[in-house]
Amino acid sequence: MNIDAVYSGLTLAPKGKLVLLVLDGLGDIAVAANGFKTPLEAASTPNLDQLAGKSSMGRMTPVAPGITPGSGPGHLGLFGYDPLEFQVGRGVIEALGLGFELKAGDIAARANFCSLDDNGIVTDRRAGRIETAICEELCGLLSSSISRLDDGTQVFICPGKGHRFVVVFRGTGMEGPISDADPNREGKPIPDPHPTNPDCPLQKKAAANIKEFYEKALPLLKGRQPANGFLMRGIAHQPDIPLFQDRYLLKAGCIAIYPMYKGLAQLVGMTKIEGASSIEQELRLCASHWDEYDFFFIHFKDTDMHGEDGNFDAKVKAIETLDSVLPILLEKNPEVIAITGDHSTPCAVAGHSWHPQPVLLHSAISGSDGLGRFTEKNANSGSLGIFDAKYLIRHMQANAKMFDKFGA
Amino acid sequence: MNIDAVYSGLTLAPKGKLVLLVLDGLGDIAVAANGFKTPLEAASTPNLDQLAGKSSMGRMTPVAPGITPGSGPGHLGLFGYDPLEFQVGRGVIEALGLGFELKAGDIAARANFCSLDDNGIVTDRRAGRIETAICEELCGLLSSSISRLDDGTQVFICPGKGHRFVVVFRGTGMEGPISDADPNREGKPIPDPHPTNPDCPLQKKAAANIKEFYEKALPLLKGRQPANGFLMRGIAHQPDIPLFQDRYLLKAGCIAIYPMYKGLAQLVGMTKIEGASSIEQELRLCASHWDEYDFFFIHFKDTDMHGEDGNFDAKVKAIETLDSVLPILLEKNPEVIAITGDHSTPCAVAGHSWHPQPVLLHSAISGSDGLGRFTEKNANSGSLGIFDAKYLIRHMQANAKMFDKFGA
Repeated sequence: MNIDAVYSGLTLAPKGKLVLLVLDGLGDIAVAANGFKTPLEAASTPNLDQLAGKSSMGRMTPVAPGITPGSGPGHLGLFGYDPLEFQVGRGVIEALGLGFELKAGDIAARANFCSLDDNGIVTDRRAGRIETAICEELCGLLSSSISRLDDGTQVFICPGKGHRFVVVFRGTGMEGPISDADPNREGKPIPDPHPTNPDCPLQKKAAANIKEFYEKALPLLKGRQPANGFLMRGIAHQPDIPLFQDRYLLKAGCIAIYPMYKGLAQLVGMTKIEGASSIEQELRLCASHWDEYDFFFIHFKDTDMHGEDGNFDAKVKAIETLDSVLPILLEKNPEVIAITGDHSTPCAVAGHSWHPQPVLLHSAISGSDGLGRFTEKNANSGSLGIFDAKYLIRHMQANAKMFDKFGA
Repeated sequence: MNIDAVYSGLTLAPKGKLVLLVLDGLGDIAVAANGFKTPLEAASTPNLDQLAGKSSMGRMTPVAPGITPGSGPGHLGLFGYDPLEFQVGRGVIEALGLGFELKAGDIAARANFCSLDDNGIVTDRRAGRIETAICEELCGLLSSSISRLDDGTQVFICPGKGHRFVVVFRGTGMEGPISDADPNREGKPIPDPHPTNPDCPLQKKAAANIKEFYEKALPLLKGRQPANGFLMRGIAHQPDIPLFQDRYLLKAGCIAIYPMYKGLAQLVGMTKIEGASSIEQELRLCASHWDEYDFFFIHFKDTDMHGEDGNFDAKVKAIETLDSVLPILLEKNPEVIAITGDHSTPCAVAGHSWHPQPVLLHSAISGSDGLGRFTEKNANSGSLGIFDAKYLIRHMQANAKMFDKFGA
């Protein structure tokens, strides 16, 4: 029995607004260094506290026990797509992160400049970590000479930071994943990319096109020092993901500041709402577009950023900043609001982790778990339990009375 | 998507030591007879208490809701193998329990002497519960006459307690499971064993060999009273289980006193470390072999034994004994330590049960759930939630930073 088909069969049109407020990397752990408190516990959050008093809580496993997700799987899970089933290649994530608007079927690759000797042997996999300006110049050089391949496939080259860039191929009859054009160490030539499934004609064509791209591009870099070659990795196509609106009957708008999160939202068909450069502006933007969407995904980056830096005090402050502007959103009286992270980024880990992120869910019929403040510890005892992140949207739909009764 | 393949793809080499300390049958239930306290709650455990203050907790479902596991499934689950997928026959468990070192492909059967009348009808399924000495004598008689079958298959006969023994067939081209050579009640003849899958040539050969064994063995017992026949049950082969080291990249040592647990550990490829006859000696043995392994499985039997006897005070005492020697292990500073049971053996049940066993997990990045002592009730509110036991090793690997990030 396909559970998604069951949900679809029961789904009714929404009447109110649903809001998913994502504090990136929100979850944390209590360790001795921070007096056994998490940032959520240490922060002063009067508005969240008031909301928590009338909410249900729980924790969410982002992918599977012990698995630490990147931003891609973390957000796909929040959007209700099983991150193990819908895998997004690194090239695609990288392209989204640079703000490139991928279309279905596009093949994207992470790339970076490298140094080659006269025999085509890789002598420096990062071309001495050239500066961004040089990377931009070289990408411009390649772009101006190669806009299409022989079969009409379009080529887009987007510079990133330092020696990094992204190449996107837009054509027909292609599919990933393709093996890396990267020896993964110095002293070897750049290997030809090849299909990961040798019997797939779509992958064969993609691999052949990438080989042709190399044949056209390498001569243009000849004589350049130190960046006279390049490597390509994570070569994958934009996956074929069921659209959010078809899946949930919800017209969804995305409010984010960083390109990657806009890109991930667009991957499932959300419309990006532009114009904010702070969390306060994001919430005001949401309020001003209130009537245009059924569902809002709002992304707040700072909690993750400070977690990655291991900066406990800054993460506490980011939570307090969010709390101070939360009334802008609450005054709109969303029918359902869920506040959570896409994963944990504990300060003690200084990186993403597998620890289940806490989630708060409020609606007129969420019930209150009577647990007090919104913290990891309280969430452990919440009525939502510890559940797979991909079910959050289903809980939100249920709270919006969007599901008919199952059976008589 | 095969989740084990995902884990394998992310697995990194271990840097520190991982310890799984199993207090057999640890979990218990609070009932009126014991003042609504469990042995963990009633015990004085200063060392566990201190560890609990900086640990995460949860409870584990050993197999599936409501299912009470035997020692085999209980331990396979702890070792990360789904006990429903990897089933180990009773004959195999029994052979392991007698200390017989099974090899892959061996067929093992539980057997016991019985009484037959002149027409081959079973008149007493347990041969009047003969004494162990007689069982040993009869097993010696059979062993000395039958060491091989006609096709070269080796036969090993190991006496157990009372009327019980084990027969192991080591040859090629055989497989279990085979139906019981046991009418399950008196007044019937011993049925021929037959393949459970009639189309399987490997099972056919195993069944034919067991029939041949009967033809050779029964005449040797003729005229003996009361044990002039025998029954065979749970006839199964040593299952083909992926090796622990291949699955987790962990070189594992097993420290146990009872043969069955050593056998279960060897079934997945752990090396047994011999020489202990008390929990204190087990922990000292672990400390003295610290550098030789990445992972230690340490088995403590007494909690289960007293639970089986329904002896609450003795179970409390066993926990206190464990607690008093725990520092021997903690002084080695394992990177990750998990303390749990393979199932619950509540004193009020006087046997194994399905109640999820409590688990405590500590590492530098486990976080603390701030729950105080390690008890069943506190574990209910832990950040690990109530999860399937087969994921414990994955949690331990995550805490040892043995998993790369999933996706970008």
